[in-house]
Amino acid sequence: MDTTGLYLAGMRQSPPLVHCITNYVAMNIMANVLLAVGASPAMVHAREEVADFAGLAQTLSVNIGTLDPAWAEAMVTAAGVMRANGRPWVLDPVGVGATRFRQEVCADLLKEKPTVIRGNASEILALAGAGAKGRGADAADPVEAAEDAARDLAQRTGAVVAVSGAVDYVTDGSAAYRVANGDALMPRVTALGCSLNGVIAAFLPGQPALQATVAALALYGLAGERAAQSAKGPGSFQTAFLDALAALTPETLTTGARVSRA
Amino acid sequence: MDTTGLYLAGMRQSPPLVHCITNYVAMNIMANVLLAVGASPAMVHAREEVADFAGLAQTLSVNIGTLDPAWAEAMVTAAGVMRANGRPWVLDPVGVGATRFRQEVCADLLKEKPTVIRGNASEILALAGAGAKGRGADAADPVEAAEDAARDLAQRTGAVVAVSGAVDYVTDGSAAYRVANGDALMPRVTALGCSLNGVIAAFLPGQPALQATVAALALYGLAGERAAQSAKGPGSFQTAFLDALAALTPETLTTGARVSRA
Amino acid sequence: MDTTGLYLAGMRQSPPLVHCITNYVAMNIMANVLLAVGASPAMVHAREEVADFAGLAQTLSVNIGTLDPAWAEAMVTAAGVMRANGRPWVLDPVGVGATRFRQEVCADLLKEKPTVIRGNASEILALAGAGAKGRGADAADPVEAAEDAARDLAQRTGAVVAVSGAVDYVTDGSAAYRVANGDALMPRVTALGCSLNGVIAAFLPGQPALQATVAALALYGLAGERAAQSAKGPGSFQTAFLDALAALTPETLTTGARVSRA
Repeated sequence: MDTTGLYLAGMRQSPPLVHCITNYVAMNIMANVLLAVGASPAMVHAREEVADFAGLAQTLSVNIGTLDPAWAEAMVTAAGVMRANGRPWVLDPVGVGATRFRQEVCADLLKEKPTVIRGNASEILALAGAGAKGRGADAADPVEAAEDAARDLAQRTGAVVAVSGAVDYVTDGSAAYRVANGDALMPRVTALGCSLNGVIAAFLPGQPALQATVAALALYGLAGERAAQSAKGPGSFQTAFLDALAALTPETLTTGARVSRA
Repeated sequence: MDTTGLYLAGMRQSPPLVHCITNYVAMNIMANVLLAVGASPAMVHAREEVADFAGLAQTLSVNIGTLDPAWAEAMVTAAGVMRANGRPWVLDPVGVGATRFRQEVCADLLKEKPTVIRGNASEILALAGAGAKGRGADAADPVEAAEDAARDLAQRTGAVVAVSGAVDYVTDGSAAYRVANGDALMPRVTALGCSLNGVIAAFLPGQPALQATVAALALYGLAGERAAQSAKGPGSFQTAFLDALAALTPETLTTGARVSRA
Repeated sequence: MDTTGLYLAGMRQSPPLVHCITNYVAMNIMANVLLAVGASPAMVHAREEVADFAGLAQTLSVNIGTLDPAWAEAMVTAAGVMRANGRPWVLDPVGVGATRFRQEVCADLLKEKPTVIRGNASEILALAGAGAKGRGADAADPVEAAEDAARDLAQRTGAVVAVSGAVDYVTDGSAAYRVANGDALMPRVTALGCSLNGVIAAFLPGQPALQATVAALALYGLAGERAAQSAKGPGSFQTAFLDALAALTPETLTTGARVSRA
C-alpha cells in the first residue's frame, strides 16, 4: 500500500465537517487533533439540534466514553441520519465491557450500521460478545487475542473493525491489514484513542473504508513516532504530537507507513 | 489609541471574577487563558446555583457551543442577573447559523442585552439575520463581508459587536476600529475564539465597552504573534500562547497593539 | 518521614483503577495527571452505570466543580458504594462557600464518610462551617487560617483533611503534617488542584490515609518544583509538570519531599 498518503491529500483537499459526539475527557484534544490533520470538527449533541447538524456533516464520530441516556439518544439519532444519507460514521465502544448500560447502548448503535468500529482489544472482544471484562479505557488484552473477534464482528455488522494496540489490526471480515506505526507514549496521554476515531471519520467520505481506516491509523502512529523523538514525557509528547500531525505530508505518510497484509 | 495597555493594567490591579457558561470543548483552555491574563475564572451552570453565582461575579461570558436546553436556560438566567445588577456580559454566538435551536436561544439571549457580542464573520452575519449559513465554529466568510451586519446589529441591540478574523472589526454602531494583531495559527487551535470572549469579559468592568473590547483583541492577537515566533505547529503554539499571555505587560501591549480607526 | 517514596512505588506496582466524578474543566488534565503518575483513571457519572462502575474501582475521587443535581446524585451513589465496600474515596469541595446548593450537596456527601477531604483554605473553612465566603476555586484565605477548622472537620467526620496552599497542612484530627513542596505557578494552571485529588485517591488503597495523603502532596509539589525549572509561563509549566510527574521515581520523591510534623 504505497498510496497511503493519497488519503491524507484527499482529505485536506476537501476538508470534511466532522460531527463528533464524544466524551468530556476527549472533546478538546479531539478537536485539536482534527484541526491539526486539516479537518473541521464540530461537537453537537442536544436532542433539539443533533439531527439538523448531522444533516450538514460529511461524516460522524460517536464515542460512548462519558455516557448518559440523553447523549445515547443523540448518538442513535445522528447515526441514523448518516445512515439515511448514505454517509459514513465511526463507533468507539469505550469501556463497553464495564457496564450493562454500555452494552445496551452499543447494541442500539450497531443497528445503525457503523462504517467503522475502532477500539482496543478488550473493547472489541466485549463488543463481539467474546466475554472480555473491560475496566474503562484500558486494554487488558493484546491485539492478537481480538483478531478472531474482530473478523466475526466485521462479518456480522458489515463494518470495518480496527483493533488498536502495539500493532493495529484492521479487517472488513475478509481482507485484513496490520499497521505497525506508533509509540509507547501514546496510551500515556488520555483520549488519543478517542481522537483517532475522529481522524478515521475524516478520512472516510468518498473513500473505501478499509483502506481509509488503514491510512488514518498509519498517519496517527507515524505522528506518534515523530513526536516521541523530541518528547521528554507525556506532557511534551502531547504537544509534539499535534505539531507532528500538522506537519506530516502525504509524501512522508506514504514513506513512513508500516502497513502489511495480515 | 496608545493607551491600550491601561486596560490590561486595570484588569490585573483588581482581577475580576469572570463567570463563564461555555462549551465543553472550551472549558479547560478558557480557564487557563483567563488565569494567564490574570483574571479569576469560574465555570458554573446549574439551575440550582447559577443565579446565586452570577450575583457574586463582576462579569459574565456566555458561549452557546455545546448547547442544550438546560444550559440555555442557565445562560438566560445568568445574563438576566448581570443586566439587573448593571454588570457587563459577553455573548459568543457559536455556530448560530447552523441550526434553528441556536437561533432561538440567541434570540432569547439578545433580550438580556449583551454588552459585547463577538463572533466570526459567518456568525455575526447569521445573528444579524443577513443569512449566512454557518457550519459550526468555522468562518466561511471574510471579516469585511460582515462589517455592515455588525454595525446594524450594534445599533439594533446596543451592544459592541466584534468580528474576529485576520483583521478584527469592532463597532458600537457609530465608531469602529480595526485590530490587526494575530497569527494564522490561532484558528488551528480549538476554542481560542471562545476563550477570547472570556478575556473581553474580564476587561469590561468599569471600562468603556468599545475601548476595552479593542484592548482585549489587541492583547490576544499580540500574544498570538509572540507565540508564533517559537511554535513548531498548533501544539507548541497553544503552549507558547499561554506563556505569552502571562508575560505581556501593559507597556508591551501599548507598543505592540495595531489598532486603527475604521 | 523518609519513606514517602514507598507510597509511589506501591501505587505503581499495582496501578489502581481510579473512578473519577469531576468537573468538566478538570476531566482531561486529571486523566493525564493520573496516567502520568502511573494510575488508571476512568470518568463515569451516569445514574444508569455509576454504581456498577464504582463496584469495579479500587478508589474514587469526587469533585463538585461544575455541579448539577444529576451529577450530585451520582456522586452520593458512588461514594456509598465505596463506603459499603470498605474502599477509600476523596472529596474536593470546590467553591463550597459560594452557593447554598454546594453546601447542601457537600452535607449529603459527608454522610458517606470520605476518607480524605482536600481543598484550599477558603473551602475547608466553609465546609467546617467557619464562615468563609468562597468565590469559586480561588483561595482568598491563607493555609494557617484554616488549620483549626481542618482539625475540627477531621475530628467531626473521621476524614483526613488536607489544606492546599504555599505550605500544605494535613491532619487526621490528632497528628498533623506540613508539606512545603510546590511552586507559585501551580495555581496559575486550572484544575491542578482538582487533579491532585485523583492522585491522593490513587495513593490510598491499602495504605494509611494520613501518610498516603502526605506522600501524594509531596509528589505533586515536587513535580511542580521540577516543572518550574524549565517553564517560561503557565503553558509550558503544564507540559513540564506532566513530564515531571511521569519521571519522578520513589527515590527522588523520598529525597525531595519536604515534610515536617506540624
